[in-house]
Amino acid sequence: MAEEDTAATFDEMRALLAAMPEPDEAAREKVVARESLLTKPAGALGRLETLTEWFASWQGRYPPQLEHPRVAVFAANHGVAGQGVSAYPSSVTAQMVANFQAGGAAINQLCLMQDADLRVYELALDHPTQDFTQAPAASETECAGAMAYGMMAVEDGIDLLCLGEMGIGNTTSAAAICHGLFGGLAADWVGSGTGVKGEVLQRKTEVVAEGVARHKKMLDDPFEVLRHLGGHELSALAGAILAARIARVPVILDGYACTAAAAVLHQADHRALDHCLVGHLSAEPGHGRLVEAIGKQPILDLGMRLGEASGAALALGVLRAAISCHVGMATFQQARIDGPAN
Amino acid sequence: MAEEDTAATFDEMRALLAAMPEPDEAAREKVVARESLLTKPAGALGRLETLTEWFASWQGRYPPQLEHPRVAVFAANHGVAGQGVSAYPSSVTAQMVANFQAGGAAINQLCLMQDADLRVYELALDHPTQDFTQAPAASETECAGAMAYGMMAVEDGIDLLCLGEMGIGNTTSAAAICHGLFGGLAADWVGSGTGVKGEVLQRKTEVVAEGVARHKKMLDDPFEVLRHLGGHELSALAGAILAARIARVPVILDGYACTAAAAVLHQADHRALDHCLVGHLSAEPGHGRLVEAIGKQPILDLGMRLGEASGAALALGVLRAAISCHVGMATFQQARIDGPAN
Repeated sequence: MAEEDTAATFDEMRALLAAMPEPDEAAREKVVARESLLTKPAGALGRLETLTEWFASWQGRYPPQLEHPRVAVFAANHGVAGQGVSAYPSSVTAQMVANFQAGGAAINQLCLMQDADLRVYELALDHPTQDFTQAPAASETECAGAMAYGMMAVEDGIDLLCLGEMGIGNTTSAAAICHGLFGGLAADWVGSGTGVKGEVLQRKTEVVAEGVARHKKMLDDPFEVLRHLGGHELSALAGAILAARIARVPVILDGYACTAAAAVLHQADHRALDHCLVGHLSAEPGHGRLVEAIGKQPILDLGMRLGEASGAALALGVLRAAISCHVGMATFQQARIDGPAN
Repeated sequence: MAEEDTAATFDEMRALLAAMPEPDEAAREKVVARESLLTKPAGALGRLETLTEWFASWQGRYPPQLEHPRVAVFAANHGVAGQGVSAYPSSVTAQMVANFQAGGAAINQLCLMQDADLRVYELALDHPTQDFTQAPAASETECAGAMAYGMMAVEDGIDLLCLGEMGIGNTTSAAAICHGLFGGLAADWVGSGTGVKGEVLQRKTEVVAEGVARHKKMLDDPFEVLRHLGGHELSALAGAILAARIARVPVILDGYACTAAAAVLHQADHRALDHCLVGHLSAEPGHGRLVEAIGKQPILDLGMRLGEASGAALALGVLRAAISCHVGMATFQQARIDGPAN
């Protein structure tokens, strides 16, 4: 993180939001037109068909192309972890980054299987955010700087971005962001994360409630919610999503922490996640409430709650299948197949 | 189909059912033991973990191996199609088989993407079953012969079998089988299939009710339900499922017609589908009721209703991911990662 060099600001991020491209309706219409000719009953591929429409419209090209997917995992540490809200110590964040680099994590196996380009981005693991029950988690320079850092994940040549995170304490931060953005009770947004229960879960809920109460004057501005209650990796995710939109790279979001970061953009501009899918429904209970709040329908529902982009990488296989069918299938005319009898 | 040569009988099928192997609990326990050591919170891969347990226990080996998946699609024609229950003429069955052979169908693209071995088995397309509103769909020799034919899909060297079908009229047959096996109303089990609605859908429902009423004395014996109301491809599917069980090859079932064929075995012996997953929940409305009746939870829910093993082949990607994670991930000890804080 080179925050001094970039000196990014929220105003710059707002300017990018205002400049977001819209979907390419011509590309979408070409998908729809070809779908109607392919050797299957109309609509029989269900969501695979609408996924292809979505993908082509955001990529802005026809035929759509999905040959160089990138999986980007952002890692950071959280001051609020000092409140004892996680089952694991903060040291695990760096150890898991080393595990990603050594190829030993779940996301490594999923990327190998999918032939996806895995990139892991560390955000100053030895400089966690402030504990948000005591202070704003970050300054604007830190938060916008982390967003700018996240934008680096969007490079020329990639045609899809799967996003995820690693950060001990970050489901606490995600719950605080959601509670701050969408209201309700702290308990509506808090779950077991890496596996806490009983008194620790209760403490986690209190921490989220305390943090949101402390910063309640800031809740009208989603960027300030991110700054006061978020984490560096969550800011980086928001930046990556925004950069992908500008570059016309479709995005698959992972689970709770990743979607919470995305929700900041959604609350700043309701169009901001139109180029994003939610890859899976996390077992973290707040995720179902969150995807409803941002109007998304996850692709998969497999009871996963790992993070590290694992659900997004798995959903990549479904999207790829959708595009393969669309591009590779024969038409009724090519295959000389009789049409409907009536 | 060489029914004279095999002269298979239902009694032979019942003998195979009685000889079904049970899961290998030792293999399952090895999966559970290793899962607890891998670099993730306990249970964080959700259903991927239970899928791996299931797979290893049925394959009866540790570590589990998924390198040679086969996708088998059975095709046949149905006398009941003459009742005008489908949107397409019966000629489409053979035309789609040619499309499979030419590589132009959805299942071809999915198998290419998954590196799966696609085999298409035709069951005498010019000899459809009898119209079950007029006569039993098949003789025992034909029905058991088709089951024996289906067993050919289970060959040495394959370590997973994905099953599907192609047959104009076969959702009508599937609905009749389900109505015959599980009761309720004909309308509970009838859906739009390839896309019928209005009067045609009403006619389809009447045909199912008529068929089941005609053969109501046979409904106590699931094999007789298959013979009177089924189709050759559905019998072949039932045979393939049974052969896979004997050979310890785990199975992924596709949608409505495929699961209806499987349900025949389930009603003959409730353990008969323990080695099978249901790959996806079909958009055909009877499928949800059917998977509940046989106690299965589909892996995917993508609104698909194509058949030809498309949903099973897509679910193969999820199973493969599960096994890749289990086999490839590092343990906490290998990666030198701190355990839970408390």
